[in-house]
Amino acid sequence: MGFGQAQGERGIMGTHFSSLFFDSPPVPRSIRAIGEEKEFPPGSMLVENNAPIEGCYYIVEGLVFAVDFTRNGEKVLGLVIDRDALVGETSLLLDMPFPMGFQAQIKTRALFIPKADFLDLFHRDKELSQYVALLVARKMFAVKGFYSNLGKEPVVWRVCNIILEFSHRYGKDFEGGTLIAFPLSHQLIADFANANRVTVTKCMQSLTKKGLVRRINNVYGVPDVPRLEAYTKTQASSYRNTL
Amino acid sequence: MGFGQAQGERGIMGTHFSSLFFDSPPVPRSIRAIGEEKEFPPGSMLVENNAPIEGCYYIVEGLVFAVDFTRNGEKVLGLVIDRDALVGETSLLLDMPFPMGFQAQIKTRALFIPKADFLDLFHRDKELSQYVALLVARKMFAVKGFYSNLGKEPVVWRVCNIILEFSHRYGKDFEGGTLIAFPLSHQLIADFANANRVTVTKCMQSLTKKGLVRRINNVYGVPDVPRLEAYTKTQASSYRNTL
Repeated sequence: MGFGQAQGERGIMGTHFSSLFFDSPPVPRSIRAIGEEKEFPPGSMLVENNAPIEGCYYIVEGLVFAVDFTRNGEKVLGLVIDRDALVGETSLLLDMPFPMGFQAQIKTRALFIPKADFLDLFHRDKELSQYVALLVARKMFAVKGFYSNLGKEPVVWRVCNIILEFSHRYGKDFEGGTLIAFPLSHQLIADFANANRVTVTKCMQSLTKKGLVRRINNVYGVPDVPRLEAYTKTQASSYRNTL
Repeated sequence: MGFGQAQGERGIMGTHFSSLFFDSPPVPRSIRAIGEEKEFPPGSMLVENNAPIEGCYYIVEGLVFAVDFTRNGEKVLGLVIDRDALVGETSLLLDMPFPMGFQAQIKTRALFIPKADFLDLFHRDKELSQYVALLVARKMFAVKGFYSNLGKEPVVWRVCNIILEFSHRYGKDFEGGTLIAFPLSHQLIADFANANRVTVTKCMQSLTKKGLVRRINNVYGVPDVPRLEAYTKTQASSYRNTL
């Protein structure tokens, strides 16, 4: 699959803030050497949330979403891992379950690194501890942004933000605008925005009517990214409060 | 000041999950060696949010709150740093401003570690990169919990949770119950819960009437922590939804 292909430097931390995506620093060779390859079909969990884990995973290829399940089973999607990165390392470092799970969205190949091997390498290998520090810092940045937005910002803002995030990450130039080369659906946007699908559909209809979003064949496009960015700002709770 | 004194192991990650407090692993000696001591009066900012920083701080003694300011100037308090720990390291690692600031609440002593010195040591010293990885992992855990709660849980739950967090961290046995050895105020609880002070006052009155919270001289007490924990669970959004 084409997910995970670089789209230039636009999505790299430091040039564009993202609450959905993060980029892993280059994974140390030592990690690749000790991992055992496993394959995950779409929908399967690499790491269950709130459960102790036996090891962490280095995602080689595929697409993985962080998932939160509320206690009544409602699924909330979080970060997107679409390029090579470790998942589960935080649980191992803290020796406790982490409240986020990781679910394969398409067929995903990952190296399984057993807990003892990971911790041993972490203590021996400076390159690995540096890598983990940088990785967790980037994840924390995204996690902070993601959950603040869910709490603070209205649904319209969250929907616009998700479209902008995907257009920064997967945008391709098309007829003077940007085409999002990712199979976004209303349901998917709703899961990321922690919103009702019907609400998202209404929201997308309104954005389409305003010319801020277009549907071209089977994918979404943003005819004018700066215009959508400007509109999104006006929908933020802080903007509304100062009116 | 007495803040930051150990209260046994109850607050240590791994034994009690916390979204307000985190414990730093032991700070490497190398950090202490290169820092320059500074003193911060109450109310002063060690690190401004969303601003580039010249270095990070190792808090030696005092009390520091993470603060978020909404764009219209509303203050939301986040994590509490009441024991020795680094702040600002994530900004330096990512080479970008972090959306959280850090404010001294009482007179605070901290070592300033210039950016270049910190990054140099991070790349040279395995002990430091391991420390930073563990520290950021603990911070991420707390940040995830804190912002999820703000978004997901009703005000009553958040207020109860803050009282429980402080009673786990600062609780002292007193007349068969727990006394919170920290100067909590309604305003402070409101700032942590991102709620209105008047709402918090009503909430505290209701908790007092139910016998879940007591005011003894100038501090709060929890006569029966397990009972308050049980009550808090019934106020969670997930519990309400399953009724």
